[in-house]
Amino acid sequence: MDYQSLLKNATAGKIGLCVGLDPVIESMPPQFHHTSEPLLKFNLEIIEATKDIAAAYKPNFAFYEAYGASGWMQLEKTIQAIPSDIVIIGDAKRGDIGSTARAYAKALFDNLKVNSATVSPYLGGDAIVPFLESDEHGVFILTVTTNPGGSDVQQLIVDGKPLFYKIIQLARRLNIKRNIGLVVGATKPELLPEILENAIDLPLLIPGVGAQGGDVERLRKTLLGYDAPVFVNASRSILYASKKKDFAIAAKHAAANLRDQLRG
Amino acid sequence: MDYQSLLKNATAGKIGLCVGLDPVIESMPPQFHHTSEPLLKFNLEIIEATKDIAAAYKPNFAFYEAYGASGWMQLEKTIQAIPSDIVIIGDAKRGDIGSTARAYAKALFDNLKVNSATVSPYLGGDAIVPFLESDEHGVFILTVTTNPGGSDVQQLIVDGKPLFYKIIQLARRLNIKRNIGLVVGATKPELLPEILENAIDLPLLIPGVGAQGGDVERLRKTLLGYDAPVFVNASRSILYASKKKDFAIAAKHAAANLRDQLRG
Repeated sequence: MDYQSLLKNATAGKIGLCVGLDPVIESMPPQFHHTSEPLLKFNLEIIEATKDIAAAYKPNFAFYEAYGASGWMQLEKTIQAIPSDIVIIGDAKRGDIGSTARAYAKALFDNLKVNSATVSPYLGGDAIVPFLESDEHGVFILTVTTNPGGSDVQQLIVDGKPLFYKIIQLARRLNIKRNIGLVVGATKPELLPEILENAIDLPLLIPGVGAQGGDVERLRKTLLGYDAPVFVNASRSILYASKKKDFAIAAKHAAANLRDQLRG
Repeated sequence: MDYQSLLKNATAGKIGLCVGLDPVIESMPPQFHHTSEPLLKFNLEIIEATKDIAAAYKPNFAFYEAYGASGWMQLEKTIQAIPSDIVIIGDAKRGDIGSTARAYAKALFDNLKVNSATVSPYLGGDAIVPFLESDEHGVFILTVTTNPGGSDVQQLIVDGKPLFYKIIQLARRLNIKRNIGLVVGATKPELLPEILENAIDLPLLIPGVGAQGGDVERLRKTLLGYDAPVFVNASRSILYASKKKDFAIAAKHAAANLRDQLRG
């Protein structure tokens, strides 16, 4: 299936819930603390519990790379376990020059077989183009991030407006195959209405609700009428809804509650 | 040894040669095309041939991730084979929010045991801070990259000057433990004199000579009198100086020639 159709089918005209697969052993129930492949085993239970609720899964590569080659192997196996109608967003935030970006694109799309990847815009358009070559894959470009320091660069004033509007322009200029979206954090809700006006029809990946504190109801209202596929991500608030044996059912409830809140 | 001393000892008051370990199987001599762990085997021969010439090695993670968990394993073993007096720069260009940046820092410094890492500034200062916590490790912040599209963002005008001067200011502000340097491409030599004035005493990592065409003699003259450790990187022009059985001796000659040119 082409990338656009995958995103549209997964969200079906509603805000899609994205479950961030950010496994941290210390935050998991005790049965995962002394076992082989704990990241994978934990993820498999989370996926099984939430696959009828999630429109996307987003593994953040940092949490796998922290465990070296073993972590990378568990990332590969996690991705293989995700049903094919659910969007897999490789949250790698890669950004490098052309020849190297091609190697990263190969790593993500050919080797790991994610559908989509997050990419960083600091290196400009030609560092993003290698990720855009196939109709079957796409990217979300970091635009406004959830962290307080995000404003250090993203909100510098260029031509009278915050820098991130230039990133949105860049995204629109590169979007020939219609496989580009934006990452826009929910923790800066005052920025969102004007971002939506500028993004027009770009898909959005919105982190920052849940543990990071973004206001779900305000987000839902702001997004009313925005037509492109939107994925709202939560990680910790779902994965670690319970740290006991009932973690999977707790994750399912947390995911269902958030999805329902997002749909109003 | 602390990070500052490591950099100073490795360069010994002269421009240091950094050998980029960017293994691409198709570019290697035929004996590596059908063998196990080809990235590692190739790297081991390159390291053996150049270890008396190189001040630093810089594996770019993209070329390992392109081969999945096996690639990551070969990256780990490559790093283990580098002598401890040579700086190891993990060229990962990571950039993520605080909790995730900590996981990336763990992956780089605790698991892979590189001395230094390249990081992307788009997420601002609090995304870089987790890499700065130890005196024994440091970063090079992407400032001016070698690719033509680098200007899309890096040279947007902020307060009357290109954006990247704000990155230099950010680097100086965060540089409390004196473990921050800048990545500045050699392909934009006209920018370098003013960058040096602003960087003052920040270490530099300069890619873009060799296959990317930066002018070595102009670079050498511009850097005369700059006091902080400087590493000039070349990858393809050394690794693939010959694609025949004599590749290691050819790499040694290419490395020695470039080092001598850099020293004038």
